[in-house]
Amino acid sequence: MRPAELDALLRAVRSGKVAPASAAKAISAEPVERVGAFAALDHHRALRAGFPEVIFGQGKTPAEIVAIAARLFARHGTVLATRVDDAGRAAMAAAFPRAQVHERARCVVLRKRAPRPVGRVLVLCAGTADLPVAEEALVTLQTMGSRAELIADVGVAGIHRVLAHRARLRNARALVVVAGLEGALPSVVGGLTDRPLIAVPTTVGYGAHFHGLAPLLSMLNSCAAGVTVVNIDNGFGAGYAAHLINKGSKGGRA
Amino acid sequence: MRPAELDALLRAVRSGKVAPASAAKAISAEPVERVGAFAALDHHRALRAGFPEVIFGQGKTPAEIVAIAARLFARHGTVLATRVDDAGRAAMAAAFPRAQVHERARCVVLRKRAPRPVGRVLVLCAGTADLPVAEEALVTLQTMGSRAELIADVGVAGIHRVLAHRARLRNARALVVVAGLEGALPSVVGGLTDRPLIAVPTTVGYGAHFHGLAPLLSMLNSCAAGVTVVNIDNGFGAGYAAHLINKGSKGGRA
Amino acid sequence: MRPAELDALLRAVRSGKVAPASAAKAISAEPVERVGAFAALDHHRALRAGFPEVIFGQGKTPAEIVAIAARLFARHGTVLATRVDDAGRAAMAAAFPRAQVHERARCVVLRKRAPRPVGRVLVLCAGTADLPVAEEALVTLQTMGSRAELIADVGVAGIHRVLAHRARLRNARALVVVAGLEGALPSVVGGLTDRPLIAVPTTVGYGAHFHGLAPLLSMLNSCAAGVTVVNIDNGFGAGYAAHLINKGSKGGRA
Amino acid sequence: MRPAELDALLRAVRSGKVAPASAAKAISAEPVERVGAFAALDHHRALRAGFPEVIFGQGKTPAEIVAIAARLFARHGTVLATRVDDAGRAAMAAAFPRAQVHERARCVVLRKRAPRPVGRVLVLCAGTADLPVAEEALVTLQTMGSRAELIADVGVAGIHRVLAHRARLRNARALVVVAGLEGALPSVVGGLTDRPLIAVPTTVGYGAHFHGLAPLLSMLNSCAAGVTVVNIDNGFGAGYAAHLINKGSKGGRA
Amino acid sequence: MRPAELDALLRAVRSGKVAPASAAKAISAEPVERVGAFAALDHHRALRAGFPEVIFGQGKTPAEIVAIAARLFARHGTVLATRVDDAGRAAMAAAFPRAQVHERARCVVLRKRAPRPVGRVLVLCAGTADLPVAEEALVTLQTMGSRAELIADVGVAGIHRVLAHRARLRNARALVVVAGLEGALPSVVGGLTDRPLIAVPTTVGYGAHFHGLAPLLSMLNSCAAGVTVVNIDNGFGAGYAAHLINKGSKGGRA
Amino acid sequence: MRPAELDALLRAVRSGKVAPASAAKAISAEPVERVGAFAALDHHRALRAGFPEVIFGQGKTPAEIVAIAARLFARHGTVLATRVDDAGRAAMAAAFPRAQVHERARCVVLRKRAPRPVGRVLVLCAGTADLPVAEEALVTLQTMGSRAELIADVGVAGIHRVLAHRARLRNARALVVVAGLEGALPSVVGGLTDRPLIAVPTTVGYGAHFHGLAPLLSMLNSCAAGVTVVNIDNGFGAGYAAHLINKGSKGGRA
Amino acid sequence: MRPAELDALLRAVRSGKVAPASAAKAISAEPVERVGAFAALDHHRALRAGFPEVIFGQGKTPAEIVAIAARLFARHGTVLATRVDDAGRAAMAAAFPRAQVHERARCVVLRKRAPRPVGRVLVLCAGTADLPVAEEALVTLQTMGSRAELIADVGVAGIHRVLAHRARLRNARALVVVAGLEGALPSVVGGLTDRPLIAVPTTVGYGAHFHGLAPLLSMLNSCAAGVTVVNIDNGFGAGYAAHLINKGSKGGRA
Amino acid sequence: MRPAELDALLRAVRSGKVAPASAAKAISAEPVERVGAFAALDHHRALRAGFPEVIFGQGKTPAEIVAIAARLFARHGTVLATRVDDAGRAAMAAAFPRAQVHERARCVVLRKRAPRPVGRVLVLCAGTADLPVAEEALVTLQTMGSRAELIADVGVAGIHRVLAHRARLRNARALVVVAGLEGALPSVVGGLTDRPLIAVPTTVGYGAHFHGLAPLLSMLNSCAAGVTVVNIDNGFGAGYAAHLINKGSKGGRA
Repeated sequence: MRPAELDALLRAVRSGKVAPASAAKAISAEPVERVGAFAALDHHRALRAGFPEVIFGQGKTPAEIVAIAARLFARHGTVLATRVDDAGRAAMAAAFPRAQVHERARCVVLRKRAPRPVGRVLVLCAGTADLPVAEEALVTLQTMGSRAELIADVGVAGIHRVLAHRARLRNARALVVVAGLEGALPSVVGGLTDRPLIAVPTTVGYGAHFHGLAPLLSMLNSCAAGVTVVNIDNGFGAGYAAHLINKGSKGGRA
Repeated sequence: MRPAELDALLRAVRSGKVAPASAAKAISAEPVERVGAFAALDHHRALRAGFPEVIFGQGKTPAEIVAIAARLFARHGTVLATRVDDAGRAAMAAAFPRAQVHERARCVVLRKRAPRPVGRVLVLCAGTADLPVAEEALVTLQTMGSRAELIADVGVAGIHRVLAHRARLRNARALVVVAGLEGALPSVVGGLTDRPLIAVPTTVGYGAHFHGLAPLLSMLNSCAAGVTVVNIDNGFGAGYAAHLINKGSKGGRA
Repeated sequence: MRPAELDALLRAVRSGKVAPASAAKAISAEPVERVGAFAALDHHRALRAGFPEVIFGQGKTPAEIVAIAARLFARHGTVLATRVDDAGRAAMAAAFPRAQVHERARCVVLRKRAPRPVGRVLVLCAGTADLPVAEEALVTLQTMGSRAELIADVGVAGIHRVLAHRARLRNARALVVVAGLEGALPSVVGGLTDRPLIAVPTTVGYGAHFHGLAPLLSMLNSCAAGVTVVNIDNGFGAGYAAHLINKGSKGGRA
Repeated sequence: MRPAELDALLRAVRSGKVAPASAAKAISAEPVERVGAFAALDHHRALRAGFPEVIFGQGKTPAEIVAIAARLFARHGTVLATRVDDAGRAAMAAAFPRAQVHERARCVVLRKRAPRPVGRVLVLCAGTADLPVAEEALVTLQTMGSRAELIADVGVAGIHRVLAHRARLRNARALVVVAGLEGALPSVVGGLTDRPLIAVPTTVGYGAHFHGLAPLLSMLNSCAAGVTVVNIDNGFGAGYAAHLINKGSKGGRA
Repeated sequence: MRPAELDALLRAVRSGKVAPASAAKAISAEPVERVGAFAALDHHRALRAGFPEVIFGQGKTPAEIVAIAARLFARHGTVLATRVDDAGRAAMAAAFPRAQVHERARCVVLRKRAPRPVGRVLVLCAGTADLPVAEEALVTLQTMGSRAELIADVGVAGIHRVLAHRARLRNARALVVVAGLEGALPSVVGGLTDRPLIAVPTTVGYGAHFHGLAPLLSMLNSCAAGVTVVNIDNGFGAGYAAHLINKGSKGGRA
Repeated sequence: MRPAELDALLRAVRSGKVAPASAAKAISAEPVERVGAFAALDHHRALRAGFPEVIFGQGKTPAEIVAIAARLFARHGTVLATRVDDAGRAAMAAAFPRAQVHERARCVVLRKRAPRPVGRVLVLCAGTADLPVAEEALVTLQTMGSRAELIADVGVAGIHRVLAHRARLRNARALVVVAGLEGALPSVVGGLTDRPLIAVPTTVGYGAHFHGLAPLLSMLNSCAAGVTVVNIDNGFGAGYAAHLINKGSKGGRA
Repeated sequence: MRPAELDALLRAVRSGKVAPASAAKAISAEPVERVGAFAALDHHRALRAGFPEVIFGQGKTPAEIVAIAARLFARHGTVLATRVDDAGRAAMAAAFPRAQVHERARCVVLRKRAPRPVGRVLVLCAGTADLPVAEEALVTLQTMGSRAELIADVGVAGIHRVLAHRARLRNARALVVVAGLEGALPSVVGGLTDRPLIAVPTTVGYGAHFHGLAPLLSMLNSCAAGVTVVNIDNGFGAGYAAHLINKGSKGGRA
Repeated sequence: MRPAELDALLRAVRSGKVAPASAAKAISAEPVERVGAFAALDHHRALRAGFPEVIFGQGKTPAEIVAIAARLFARHGTVLATRVDDAGRAAMAAAFPRAQVHERARCVVLRKRAPRPVGRVLVLCAGTADLPVAEEALVTLQTMGSRAELIADVGVAGIHRVLAHRARLRNARALVVVAGLEGALPSVVGGLTDRPLIAVPTTVGYGAHFHGLAPLLSMLNSCAAGVTVVNIDNGFGAGYAAHLINKGSKGGRA
């Protein structure tokens, strides 16, 4: 409860317009809706964090995903579900005929109306196999309302492929750079731009890659300043953070 | 070289104003100045990335740090040196009487004139022992030109300490959250704001902390969306990235 | 053998009531029953540790589980089997028609009569996907005789969800807090109560989660005093320990 | 604020005894006292968690420790400082002539009057070199008000040393078991008692011990149910948790 | 663009033979061909690195592999695809009837005409189970144009098996030594020859082998000077590097 | 070639009984037989190491295992194959009707005649799920010619189970102790005997067990002197080493 | 208590020669002597495990080491202290003028009379820097009564150095093989002998050696059967185990 | 002994020119010279591996280093000692007035006459702090007889610094690329050349760098084919291998 709201409520108590018991209830009230025994939806998040709760599909049954999506859609008109497996995506498609199902990104989006995209975010990925993660970032950005584009297959061993996009690198408000193997791309890109850059390591690799540890460590140790990092394969998290950066540049809260 | 510059140069060649040999030299020119045998300064970085090269003091002798600082100061009027040990800070103070030496943050700043601070970035740290890292972020932000404030000692085991600052959390353009031990603070703070949040794990802890691994993993796995992470104890990197986010919000490059 | 028993036995030897050979046998006797070639049941555990041996189903065939359960049930009237896979649960259900099969918790309980529950233990879990582990703790607690309740889906990124349960947190004799991802929930909960708190990291997560390592380290480094930790996904162990704490508070052994 | 307090406050608002502004302030009030720029003391913890904030000495200067101790002592009459290095202990002894300084445990205790010890907690340690950690647990227990005893040097390779203490193992309300090397002691002790057992791995060892990792993993995988674990060398945390268990058994909150 | 080319181009601009816009385009031109949305082929690599881009099959669909192979084959007349799974190899065999499919090595080769093999490279492997990796190296070497032979099953526990091949070890221009388990073979072989030796650890082993970590560390710490190492199971990388060494010895670039 | 043999051969050369070429061939001869392209059998091992080469089944096809077994059986009359999967065991049973197939141990034994067992080795295992590894050790011991017995399911949490076997522990020439979970059994057993003890960690466990790392580290750090360790799940290696110890005690080579 | 002793005692109880109380005391008696508050000596170990308790010097003060040594020497006439630092060795030399101080091995030995050495154990080490560990093994062996010799500096990169000692390798009853770097020596030696071989990894190395992890893993994965492993730098443990093997071969307990 | 030598020797035996005993001795002769009790010099290495044994200074006393150097110098006229600490370098300088002491590289070189350098090897390093490792490679190359040059401070975040050296990258017979932090430089350089490239990770970094693990994994996973890797900070190994490659290209052994 914001201070002004609390103050107003307490004045209403004093004036007798609101009973103490009601006020106590309101002060303690929990904007949480339970779905079956398995989930508690946090509807205030839309106010607090600027976007409704996102469904993390991993470890949830198709039925659970559909049930949660239905509640969120009814309340907010927008749903983003990530890491939805094949069965979950099929169940979502069946339950919501207008759902946008992104197969490679394993995402499902429900939306009453599309927002007008703002700003500009560039998503780059180093190899073909990194595309699922890069597209998860892209879908997240676009669903949240950012204008976003993807440049694929620009590895550092062919450095001219990266250099060819130099102008676009500088023209975005934020960058998401996705890479597996040694994860060197964010360092090279970071040296070519002054835009905030979010690096995403992927599990693409084998052996001493240790399922993404190699590029994760690489990115955390990047010699390019301004690089921040999210979890291995976390395209969603990178897209979400990039949207916050991109969106923020409109406001004037200083 | 930006496209427009290249185009202009080539037209000058055609018109005979510039000789082919001069043009070839300009196109290939390397804006790198060598300092002794041990360093190559990248003076174009100020154009390319918005700030002159920063001196990473670790592994450099006091004499090397002073020599590099002198060149950068002469060229750009602003120098930031981080991870400068006791001997290095003393050498800098001796060589540059007007240097600002930040003991706890182990930074040295040289500046012809202070920039007018823009925007607003909030730096939070969980415990007293995290202060050196938090202050490194603060010094970086302020040196680069951001308005920045520090809130210290707000751990999650006393959650009301965090909640007490809720309004300020939402009023910043970017947040830097520094924590050792289990590194839970970014998750709690991230749930209270819609601002981009950069998490910095620290080496504060012992035993199964593994010199910062525990909070690093914690932050990478944060349940709060919008959290990005930098290397353990990397206050500089977090401040640098937060400045890019904060500064970017003024522009209108969409 | 307790000192008093030993003393009585030796007096009986002296008085000739018990032959030396019998006494030697009794002193050396092993209260262990063998089941086939694959198991040795420790029936004294009920005396020694307050509860009959629990069947750890992992790595045992359905037939082995059923055979061990039959022996334990005949002797003690109570059986708890954990980590029983689908085939094992089906075999148990077929062999013991009155068995309580907990599908999500992968547990099977046999019980001649339900104990009257004592005390109060609260089990919290951070996300929907943590429920199997939380329910394993709950089943263990209830089978052993503790009154126990579950609060699900209270993550730290929506801190008000946790705060809403503050009163219940303080009203329990012990708490079991289950969390995957960054495992921050025990730190926040631990700061709100003075009850012993057992933290359970889970494998819910991906990437730099390393199959539960992230929340395990997080919990071991918790800034909240009074937090102790069990193995990843070990709902049983947490429930068992919480029961010992809860039960102990009745006694007066000081 | 407890529900009853809130209700009373709101009734006072209605009746006009308390002004809305005062009530708003009370509801939002933060019981936090700042010490210099480096610490924020949480005085409500004594109410919330049953004991004043404990000073974690690592990473704090002697002057900071003394300053914090003075504030806590003035407010609560009891101070426990752990992980205080040689200089810190000397500073505390100088500042507080009646301070109890525990050299091996690296703790300092200030206390207006000693509490009457309650219950009984047993601290065991496997080897001579584990004593500093075991004594940290002991000091913590005694400072908080538990009756506590220490049994030293009972390693599992001489199993009769452990068995000799069987009766005492069963007579305590909680056990703290400290071990380095392979950390097997908690498993053996846990099989001999039905009391809650908190295991503390130590850094005593070398080579593939990896600074406590070996006994930490060992204890987390203990085959004895009822064992919970704290961080490597965290005698304080084990003592704190054992005190909560021991103290709790007096109450009757069911 | 090589300096001479740039100079010539600029002279052509001056003389009016080439328009500035064309020259700007040429200077910036990107020798990259896009295949669908999923790949960007780097045709300059054949010039730059001496061999066309190699297809890394892992994480690509059979259709993607075939599409990329077709483009590369049309342009360069030679294609090497590695880590192609069963479906991918079947698709390649169907699409290119003259493809050489190496089942054990999981490679596919397309070639207009076979190069005349040069030099001599020896591939050794320690055990039968290491053969897939050793053959990947062999196929890579032969496809790139090196004369190469394989000696299999020469483990260090039967040291005479190694010694028997001493003459051949010294007769090669480069060696590739493949080993799982403890990975000791490169150390023994390295002591018997003065040829450059590339060591390849494999995943052959179990338990504390940690999927190749044991031989990887072993090889990195080899007491034999002159040993360099590639990633676990990376037969391709070892073969590629050995070919560069072998080929280089013809040239006279000093 | 032993010195005496070499000397005799050279004398025969001098006397003209052996031609120089024959002598050169004998000195260099390699007692290695190749099987297809995939294996090189080391028939001298029976002389050198006291037992013919053992077939390590992992990573070999059923056909390869049968082919190697046939050669070894023809030459030595005894074959031991370990880590043979279901298909491999079926193929061996089909190819050699008199083969002894040990299902749980995943071993196959071929033997012209059984050796008379010598000495005595005791194999202990902590839990039912450790049996496959313990039986691999047992089969290895018995196939090589040691008298060996197995005591199963003697965990340290029921220490009397171990103590009950004290006499047998001291009566063996060597002990193999197999344990998963925390791997504490070798420390307890090692304290009760003066026999050489080989500890075998197993993968039995979950979570922070890390596939056997926990008991491996535990055993390497055992407080009981005289404990040596083999790889995780390496029942074969432990049995082999125990046989060498047991067998050796007959000889009188001092 | 051995069965025969127990039987005799009980007969004495029956016949009235021994009072029940005395018998109860004898049965429960603890052969443990306390030294100050810091150690509990296990004098039965000499009977149980064949050698008095060994003093592990690490983490003990010089005074503690001297005190424990005095007690052990008085009772058993033989003392072995390992990992004794400079101060400890000086204190021992001062307290026991006839002490043998082994500087490089960091051991101190006290002995009333030297045992007649039995059997034969060979200690090999790969490099000069491994000597401290090899000598710790040697001192342990000789103190316990084994005839033992050391062969130093036989690395696998000069394989002929190893081969030159082939005869001696086969002539020992047990081998201790000490190696740092990649730890390949035990594999090569193990292939040349049928004697039990105990491998000791050392911390000699740098970088990806990870303080002994590389040779530890290497040795655990040795392709030579019959190799068992002790902790990194644990020369004492290897010597102790080798002595048990060597000594055992005299007995005839089959 | 090469086959031809053996044949000739045996013919000499037959003809009576050589006595059997002499021949036996020659066949078994060991070209190893012992230095004190601590080292065994392998003088045949100069023949076998093309360069005399190199002294690895770490873990050796100054006196040992000088003694070994004296023997090697007497026999071969060339000595290279690496990882020689301050005391060792001083001792070498004192003992051999003409020794070349490389302070930053921590190497000492003794040489009767300088070889005429052959070929060309390029050593690059990413940052100033990587210089000690890069110079160790340079000294090794030059001592062994390669022409070698160093390009320092060319990090990937300023990619034009790398590109500026493109021609030289292609003009060398082998490259050594040294980098700390994220270790991305070998990937970028590897994409610009077709020369064999040896990557050397360094310990330059902090936090999640884990003392060189980050660039080590990065380099092992490089997307540029032809990259091989040596141990962290192993400039010597990289220089040695690069020399073998560089030297080999003169020969014509195909």
